[in-house]
Amino acid sequence: MITIALPKGALLSDSIELFKRLGLDFTAFLDSKNRQLQITDPTNTAKGLLVRATDVPVYVEYGQAQLGIVGYDLLLEKTPDVAHLADLNFGGCRMSVAVPKTSPYQTPTELPPNGKVASKFVNCAKTYFQQLDLPVEIIPLYGSVELGPITGMSEAIVDLVSTGRTLKENGLVEVDTLFQSTARLIAHPLSYRLNLDNLNDLGEQIKNSVSKS
Amino acid sequence: MITIALPKGALLSDSIELFKRLGLDFTAFLDSKNRQLQITDPTNTAKGLLVRATDVPVYVEYGQAQLGIVGYDLLLEKTPDVAHLADLNFGGCRMSVAVPKTSPYQTPTELPPNGKVASKFVNCAKTYFQQLDLPVEIIPLYGSVELGPITGMSEAIVDLVSTGRTLKENGLVEVDTLFQSTARLIAHPLSYRLNLDNLNDLGEQIKNSVSKS
Repeated sequence: MITIALPKGALLSDSIELFKRLGLDFTAFLDSKNRQLQITDPTNTAKGLLVRATDVPVYVEYGQAQLGIVGYDLLLEKTPDVAHLADLNFGGCRMSVAVPKTSPYQTPTELPPNGKVASKFVNCAKTYFQQLDLPVEIIPLYGSVELGPITGMSEAIVDLVSTGRTLKENGLVEVDTLFQSTARLIAHPLSYRLNLDNLNDLGEQIKNSVSKS
Repeated sequence: MITIALPKGALLSDSIELFKRLGLDFTAFLDSKNRQLQITDPTNTAKGLLVRATDVPVYVEYGQAQLGIVGYDLLLEKTPDVAHLADLNFGGCRMSVAVPKTSPYQTPTELPPNGKVASKFVNCAKTYFQQLDLPVEIIPLYGSVELGPITGMSEAIVDLVSTGRTLKENGLVEVDTLFQSTARLIAHPLSYRLNLDNLNDLGEQIKNSVSKS
């Protein structure tokens, strides 16, 4: 039986909707009272595994799940060893550089050479500033990255932006976009190559369902 | 004015209680409706900064907070460049190795040489198994580590245990303890050495308050 790793959080309801269109019902995960992390769909065709978004590529890389749904941002940040099958065209957001509205630096290249940039996406931020040839220091934070500039710890942040509300509430403005991100379908490379449990068929069905919607 | 980084989560209420005994009132952070991440205490003596537990040592290391409260587990895992001032004797828990109740491996040294261990505390786990001279592979997870053995991805986990309820609910048993952890008072090394804003006095007051309680 195929196991599908589904991400908690922002991408969950659209992911469940996608599989429902293909006859795989994991809606029980959306019930706020649900405590189960593994559910077999009522037709006994596939198993859903509910995990943190960051852990989805880990389960797929180790073959514990043959398919998974994850944001493009995490694929770029963690570079897991997984097969990238399709852009699912939902969960759109962007990775942006933001600075305080009142900052003297209103473009990334104006940041001082000893500048500090707070981010949860350390690798994405590093690559970006290396390409600009700007030797800034990346400060790894796990929550409330916007506190970096507010407390004066950093001149800028690199973070995922969807509506832009958090930035606005904290007096920050976007000055550049690293990349656009959407939800992606990933697969365990060996399972996909060997077509275990007819995995390729399900992959094709998902791709067709997305291009039609 | 001294800034104190306080950790969201399990250590927050005891941390706020500690400072309240010294006349610094940050109880507003405990109000579930509170959205502020920075509060100055009513006597205008110190500022509280509410951040993720993992981010506390970051703010203290960069001197954005002169004092902070953090679990010993995070100090061992992240080895931040901070001064370690006192054991605060609350927030007791332990870092443990656990395996499924039904596992054929009931001690860590019985784990197979190609075994896999899931953990949020990758560095603590690595150090522990290196000392045992066991070449296991550590799988980094961010949430629900107990899913590692349940899905068959790993033979064991290394995780923080306080009541043991999560382990029990997931059919896991502890087979060894890496170390005991409690909340610790940390300081920005340079601020402490230079005694900025009379930091040493506040440090002493905290230490005395703990030894008396």
